[in-house]
Amino acid sequence: MKKIEEAEVIFQPLGRRFIIPIGESLYLAAKAANVESLCGGRGLCGKCRIIIKEGKSLISSPSVSEEKFLSKEEFIKGYRLACQAVVVNAGKIIVEIPFESRVGKQKLAVLGMEAKVELNPYIKKYFLEVPSPTLKDFKPDFERIIEALKLKYDLNIRRINYYALKKLPMTLRSSEFKVTLVIKAEKEIIDVEEENKEKELYGFAVDIGTTKVAGYLMDLNNGKVVATVSMMNPQIPYGEDVISRISYASKNPLNLEALHKTIIDGVNQLIKEACDKTNIDSKSIYELVIVGNTVMHHLFFNINPKFLGSSPYVPTLKSSFYVKSKEIGVGIHPEAEVYSLPLIAGFVGADAVADILATEIYKLKEKALLIDIGTNTEIILSNGSKLICCSTASGPAFEGAHITHGMRAATGAIEKVWINPEDLNPTYKTVDDEEPRGICGSGIVDAISEMLKAKIIDFNGRIKTEINNSRIRKNNNTIEYVIAWKEETAINKDITITQKDIFEIQLAKAAIYTGISILMNKFNVEPKELSKVFIAGAFGLYLNSESAKTIGMIPDIPLNKIIFAGNTAGSGARMALTSKKIRDEAENLVNEIKYIELAAEPNFEHEFASALRLPHKNVNLFPSVRKILNF
Amino acid sequence: MKKIEEAEVIFQPLGRRFIIPIGESLYLAAKAANVESLCGGRGLCGKCRIIIKEGKSLISSPSVSEEKFLSKEEFIKGYRLACQAVVVNAGKIIVEIPFESRVGKQKLAVLGMEAKVELNPYIKKYFLEVPSPTLKDFKPDFERIIEALKLKYDLNIRRINYYALKKLPMTLRSSEFKVTLVIKAEKEIIDVEEENKEKELYGFAVDIGTTKVAGYLMDLNNGKVVATVSMMNPQIPYGEDVISRISYASKNPLNLEALHKTIIDGVNQLIKEACDKTNIDSKSIYELVIVGNTVMHHLFFNINPKFLGSSPYVPTLKSSFYVKSKEIGVGIHPEAEVYSLPLIAGFVGADAVADILATEIYKLKEKALLIDIGTNTEIILSNGSKLICCSTASGPAFEGAHITHGMRAATGAIEKVWINPEDLNPTYKTVDDEEPRGICGSGIVDAISEMLKAKIIDFNGRIKTEINNSRIRKNNNTIEYVIAWKEETAINKDITITQKDIFEIQLAKAAIYTGISILMNKFNVEPKELSKVFIAGAFGLYLNSESAKTIGMIPDIPLNKIIFAGNTAGSGARMALTSKKIRDEAENLVNEIKYIELAAEPNFEHEFASALRLPHKNVNLFPSVRKILNF
Ligand code: FES
Ligand code: FES
Repeated sequence: MKKIEEAEVIFQPLGRRFIIPIGESLYLAAKAANVESLCGGRGLCGKCRIIIKEGKSLISSPSVSEEKFLSKEEFIKGYRLACQAVVVNAGKIIVEIPFESRVGKQKLAVLGMEAKVELNPYIKKYFLEVPSPTLKDFKPDFERIIEALKLKYDLNIRRINYYALKKLPMTLRSSEFKVTLVIKAEKEIIDVEEENKEKELYGFAVDIGTTKVAGYLMDLNNGKVVATVSMMNPQIPYGEDVISRISYASKNPLNLEALHKTIIDGVNQLIKEACDKTNIDSKSIYELVIVGNTVMHHLFFNINPKFLGSSPYVPTLKSSFYVKSKEIGVGIHPEAEVYSLPLIAGFVGADAVADILATEIYKLKEKALLIDIGTNTEIILSNGSKLICCSTASGPAFEGAHITHGMRAATGAIEKVWINPEDLNPTYKTVDDEEPRGICGSGIVDAISEMLKAKIIDFNGRIKTEINNSRIRKNNNTIEYVIAWKEETAINKDITITQKDIFEIQLAKAAIYTGISILMNKFNVEPKELSKVFIAGAFGLYLNSESAKTIGMIPDIPLNKIIFAGNTAGSGARMALTSKKIRDEAENLVNEIKYIELAAEPNFEHEFASALRLPHKNVNLFPSVRKILNF
Repeated sequence: MKKIEEAEVIFQPLGRRFIIPIGESLYLAAKAANVESLCGGRGLCGKCRIIIKEGKSLISSPSVSEEKFLSKEEFIKGYRLACQAVVVNAGKIIVEIPFESRVGKQKLAVLGMEAKVELNPYIKKYFLEVPSPTLKDFKPDFERIIEALKLKYDLNIRRINYYALKKLPMTLRSSEFKVTLVIKAEKEIIDVEEENKEKELYGFAVDIGTTKVAGYLMDLNNGKVVATVSMMNPQIPYGEDVISRISYASKNPLNLEALHKTIIDGVNQLIKEACDKTNIDSKSIYELVIVGNTVMHHLFFNINPKFLGSSPYVPTLKSSFYVKSKEIGVGIHPEAEVYSLPLIAGFVGADAVADILATEIYKLKEKALLIDIGTNTEIILSNGSKLICCSTASGPAFEGAHITHGMRAATGAIEKVWINPEDLNPTYKTVDDEEPRGICGSGIVDAISEMLKAKIIDFNGRIKTEINNSRIRKNNNTIEYVIAWKEETAINKDITITQKDIFEIQLAKAAIYTGISILMNKFNVEPKELSKVFIAGAFGLYLNSESAKTIGMIPDIPLNKIIFAGNTAGSGARMALTSKKIRDEAENLVNEIKYIELAAEPNFEHEFASALRLPHKNVNLFPSVRKILNF
């Protein structure tokens, strides 16, 4: 009899059952059972915590990474990291998902600031009624319709694609020479439809974020959104951030294909959802516009992102790009085009271009700044006539990764914090007002700003252990501040901000501020000269700008100059979908804008070191913060 | 036990064996066994004669069409038409193919007059060596190569197709940034290849005739033909002429698909043959140029030709047209384009445009005529500045169809005839100097011209039965002239020219001359003003122009003005393959040339009736013939 080479794994409390072969980790099953993960199963984030209730002996011994993330007591209780726990023997394993590892329903911001554009889509429809041929008028079908297009619409069409050409003779005659022509860029006929179908003209705009994908079904006859849909990026199981996806995709062509297929399937699912909602035929969608960072862009198009993963971070192309939907398997009209906005550089993608278009920072005749905060933060500075930009690796700390009790902005995340400077007791607000189970990016920024103002930490971010308060404590070599006692929480554990957490945030905010300051130096712009600071991205929407200023993440400017622009990547995609002109502007833009590679700047190290301080080594840069902190 | 529902059919003398289900005719098996057929199995040509040696009772009783084409004695001997003989019972059938029904090796003319063109193909290759990216020069791959193309070759490329884009990053790095770019129309990169592959740049030109397909593999670096290949049009089993193929294709979409697939397969076979001959990789063929009459064009592109089959004979388009090879399944480079020269009208196709290009009649500053003789004869007239054209249904008589002993210009065909006016005995020459087994188009024209000169027939084409000569006789209601006694022939039968045959040729030549004369009237051109008469097409190559003049098929002009241009359709295709400029000229041409629909001309009937006479009712139009005939 052959030995059974698999283990049966049951995840509680949901009771989901998986069969896992010997030699494989519990990671994929855990992902399917909604266990949190930020590093794509590489043992780096420590978020995929599970508890083995039964079958410990069937699992490998703890890995180095588990020793780092889990305490001895936790091991005794059965805690493991799912991605490190490898099945070594056949049998039955029962797993519990602790509350803190459960992925909650995440807040997905899908709206953003949007500039008005003149409706002029790339694809248009024209109804025509042409005379039928006679012995005196025996023009061929194609020449008959182009003559009529010239006459009725003053269009000079010279081309027809193969798909439409094949349909042309039968369609003309089956609908008595009354047809609707679908025309691309006022140049080429891409379909010929029976009768008058002018009304059925839709487009779909997609913003592919590393974490989130948002889609907008638009009526191209009026430029209005008819359905908004969104989902988590289905590539997340392959890696939480762009770097882990690059490394996965670069390993072999099948991996690349898998990542590509996953996002295409995801986009198709969004399209279907939007069409189902509105009862619109997906074949009436004649164009798809996508924006995304450079890595998402490359993966969407099945282009190997390998060289985006190492210096000098070279993309395959930055120009805008068209490809037929059928060539990449997008389920809309078969002859529809998929258009991508242009990119700027390896880490300043089409999403940043969309930000620029949506905020119209490129049209301002004033000095202004645009910051799109994410794992990579893109920064664009206008001196009133020119644009300059950079990208900075701010890391995933604002998304909760690398933070002891960090989590995304999902149910139960502490998102706002106030600290009473007298007794050092905090007040907080959680997402959905549920019992806290962690702290998200905006909560951490708030907490550190409040800790600074309450003098719990000093300008170097050091927690003052000399303060005598039960919330400030040493715990296994860790110094921390307790935000929520375990009795208040949903995870039955104290939620704290550790010294390490503070340092992670200092690194992140210093990265951002260094980028800002290097750009401002290049253009010789002072903070006070800025007329506007746009903060784009979902994270920005929840950020307390006062706190961000206090910790020195953004320049010290009056709050009324700060504009939270929201998901401008999606807005830019929608603008490009409804306006051909915007596409030309985008193309000009990326050729004009100068990209600064921060790593190549001689004063980078020095700027960075100064920006690590709270708010900054040069306190004169932050006069209003100085006033509040009173030094 | 289930009854056997099939018959086993063996064709002698080759012994080929077929299984034919009850209800099906012997036609397809006969075709496969090389039995002649000119009507595509519709019982119209009477050429698919076979002899049933065994199993007569397994076959249907004679059809109306067989009663027309076969005599009582022949029936007794077992003669049948393969396309009419339907299997009605299971069993074994032995069939003999009589000599006259065997398809010989046909002469296929593949060469033709060709104008010199400047080498400037649509697809070119450029070798590039680009610097690899650094921290100071981090341009994306695409922008890196377009910059280098500008620098080294002064090219302004803005586009890259999806196929090449996907390959770009890996190819650049696997060949150390030395790559060969394949560029279309100096506009778009369609492939990127490792190292220097500039030498491997080929194109393929195809001339799709109703009967014959010729292919030319060309080196696009020097414009030279490296291999010439040809085959019978594999669509022939579906119908010998364009009308029968239109009617077959129009019946249902599957039929159209079958005809389309058949010609694509045929072209692929030619490509393979040419590549095998020369050891060239078919993936190094970057473009295919096709020419053909309008019906062949439509069928090649899978466009329904239905409306070419009835008045007003409207094509789907006349403009030139590009489609990707992968879209229609041509086995060359997957991103290669298939280009078709433009058409002029329903019965004046891209082959006629190729004729015009190859003969350069459109550049002449003199009055000139171009005649491409075939089942449809295209006629183009230049008045020294403008072109006018028409098409005339000259029928398949010149190809041997509808002629009692007619056959194609294959082995054993009588191709030249002289008649001694004294004793009325003929001398003849056959193809390959084999014993005669029929008479081909040029032989018939010769024979009739000689019969006219020997006064065997009168100006109305009537055989003078009053002449007392054993070669002139009445035979079963048929009046005929014996060209070869059965002892001389390979078919053991007298080969004759019947009164009906003469009438068929009169109809055919009258159709041609009517077209010529209507065009000449339009432009007010007299025969003597013509500086050149080009005769294009394979048939033209064998035609005795003196005889053609004598019977009034072409205008009476000095022989030194007649130019036998050969297969100019192929030449035009090759010119278009090597020169982008020729394509523009072709496009202008078809917009300038005026097409005359003969059926709509008020004097058509009258002109036709006059042209039925030998040489013509108005003998003054044929002064030199008048002199010879002495009236
Ligand atoms: S450590 Fe397991 S998913 Fe990150
Ligand atoms: S009659 Fe049989 S093929 Fe023409």
